[in-house]
Amino acid sequence: MKGTSMAPTDKFIAENTFRVRYAETDAMGVVHHASHIVYFEAGRSHYARVRGHDYAQFERSGYFLLVAEIHARYAKAAVYDQLITVRCWIDEMKSRSVTFGYEIVDAESRETLVTGTSKHICIEKSGKVVPIPMEWRAWGQE
Amino acid sequence: MKGTSMAPTDKFIAENTFRVRYAETDAMGVVHHASHIVYFEAGRSHYARVRGHDYAQFERSGYFLLVAEIHARYAKAAVYDQLITVRCWIDEMKSRSVTFGYEIVDAESRETLVTGTSKHICIEKSGKVVPIPMEWRAWGQE
Amino acid sequence: MKGTSMAPTDKFIAENTFRVRYAETDAMGVVHHASHIVYFEAGRSHYARVRGHDYAQFERSGYFLLVAEIHARYAKAAVYDQLITVRCWIDEMKSRSVTFGYEIVDAESRETLVTGTSKHICIEKSGKVVPIPMEWRAWGQE
Amino acid sequence: MKGTSMAPTDKFIAENTFRVRYAETDAMGVVHHASHIVYFEAGRSHYARVRGHDYAQFERSGYFLLVAEIHARYAKAAVYDQLITVRCWIDEMKSRSVTFGYEIVDAESRETLVTGTSKHICIEKSGKVVPIPMEWRAWGQE
Repeated sequence: MKGTSMAPTDKFIAENTFRVRYAETDAMGVVHHASHIVYFEAGRSHYARVRGHDYAQFERSGYFLLVAEIHARYAKAAVYDQLITVRCWIDEMKSRSVTFGYEIVDAESRETLVTGTSKHICIEKSGKVVPIPMEWRAWGQE
Repeated sequence: MKGTSMAPTDKFIAENTFRVRYAETDAMGVVHHASHIVYFEAGRSHYARVRGHDYAQFERSGYFLLVAEIHARYAKAAVYDQLITVRCWIDEMKSRSVTFGYEIVDAESRETLVTGTSKHICIEKSGKVVPIPMEWRAWGQE
Repeated sequence: MKGTSMAPTDKFIAENTFRVRYAETDAMGVVHHASHIVYFEAGRSHYARVRGHDYAQFERSGYFLLVAEIHARYAKAAVYDQLITVRCWIDEMKSRSVTFGYEIVDAESRETLVTGTSKHICIEKSGKVVPIPMEWRAWGQE
Repeated sequence: MKGTSMAPTDKFIAENTFRVRYAETDAMGVVHHASHIVYFEAGRSHYARVRGHDYAQFERSGYFLLVAEIHARYAKAAVYDQLITVRCWIDEMKSRSVTFGYEIVDAESRETLVTGTSKHICIEKSGKVVPIPMEWRAWGQE
C-alpha cells in the first residue's frame, strides 16, 4: 500500500501545492509528523475555497467545524523545500458531520507521502451541534 | 465514550503534566488539534525517560523511531493555561515496531480530553528497518 | 557578551523550567528559532501566574496584551530533551504598554542560550488602546 | 510609522505570497506573533531560490546559516485565510554574516502588517564560523 494512491476517482479533489518550510522539519531532518496535520488543514481550507464557500466565511456565519477525529498514515518522509501537493476530498457527508480524505504527494513525482482523514462536527458559537448548512452539504453528493 | 478513560489497567502508564501555551491555541479559542499530536510526543518522551532509557540517548545510539501512523479522537477542547496530563503507555510492542497509547486528561478533574495512538518503526541512520533494542522491547512485556 | 546573563539584579524574576520537545527542533538538529519566541511567551505566562494575576484571567476581564515588538539574540543552540529555564521580568512598565525581558538558560549549567524582550500594548476587546489595570501596573515598581 | 513601508528602493526584493493557515492563529483570533517569524523564514527561503541558489542546496554543500538575532515590529494583525506577501531583501552582507530585511504586507491592499530583520552567521557542519560562499555574498552588492 505504501506509495499507492488511496484517492477516490468519483469525487471532486482539490489540490493545494506549496513548499515545506524549515520550521516544519525536525531533528530527524524531515517534516515533523504534526506538520502534516497542519497540511491537511491547509488542504481542506483550499477545498472549501475552490468549491465556492470558504471556511472563513463559514465561521463569520456563526458556524464552526470542530475536529472530532484525525487519522494519518505516513508512507514517505518529506524534506525542507520539497514541493508538495495536498489532495483533499469529501469522504463522507452527514447532516451534522463531515469527513475529509487527504493524500499528500510529491508535486512532481506524484509519489504518495501521507494519507489520512479528519472528521468534523458542525457547531454553533454556543457549542450546540447543528446541521451543516445546505450549500456545504451538497458537496457530499458531488 | 466521550470522557471515558480508555487507558489500560495492566500496563505501566507514565504521566506528564504541563500547562497549555497560548501559541498552541487557535482562533476558535481552544487548543489546535495538531498541538495534541505534539502533546502525545511529549508524553512518549516522558514515558521513555521514566522507564530509564530516554529517546535522546536512543537516537545517539544510532536508532530512530519513525512515525508510521497517528490516530486521535477529540472528546473535549482544552484551553489556554489549562493544566493537562498526558498519560502514555505501550499499546503493542513488536520486534520492529511499537505502538503507544495516549490519553490527555484535565490534570485536576481527570476528565478525558483526547485519546489516541501512534505507531512507530525502528530504523537505523541509513533508513534500514531494524529490531528495536532489547532494553526497550522489554517494556512491552511489563 | 555570549553566554553572559543580561538579567537585572533589582527586579522580580520568574523562572519556568521545562524540557525541549522534539517538534520544537528543526533539520539543523537544534531548537528552531521561532520556538524560543514561544518559550518567551511561556515565561511571561508563568510570570503573571506567580505574581498572582494570571493572563487567562486578564483576558476574561476583557483585556488583551497585543505583541507590538519582539527581539531575540541567540547565543547557544538548545537541543531536544534539554532541560531549560525561561527567566522573565518586567523590563519597563508604562500606563498602556509593558516590556518583558527574557533570558533562556540551561537549567543545570545556567549557561545563557537566548536573551530577548517583547513589548505589548494593552487593548480592550474592541481593539481600543487602554491603560493596563493597576494591579498589573504595580509590578513595574517592584 | 505604523503601516509605512520600510523596504529599501535600491535592492532586489523577493516576494512570496500565501494564505494564513488556521493553525497559525491563536485564541486572540489573529496570527500568533511567532508565526510571523516562520513567515520571515519562508520569505528568505524564497529569496534564495529566486536568486538562483536555494538554501537546501546551501546546506547540502555543507554550510548552515545560524540565526543570531531576530527583530520584529507588529503594525497590524493578520487573520485566518488572509492572503499575505512576505517581502525579503538583503539588509547587510558581511563576509561571515548576513542580515535579511522583511516586510509582510496584505497581498491586495499592500498595507504593512509586520516588519523585521534576522541576522545569520555562516557555519560549517563542525560548527566553525566560515566565510559565506562568494555566489551568495554577491547578493549584498546587488
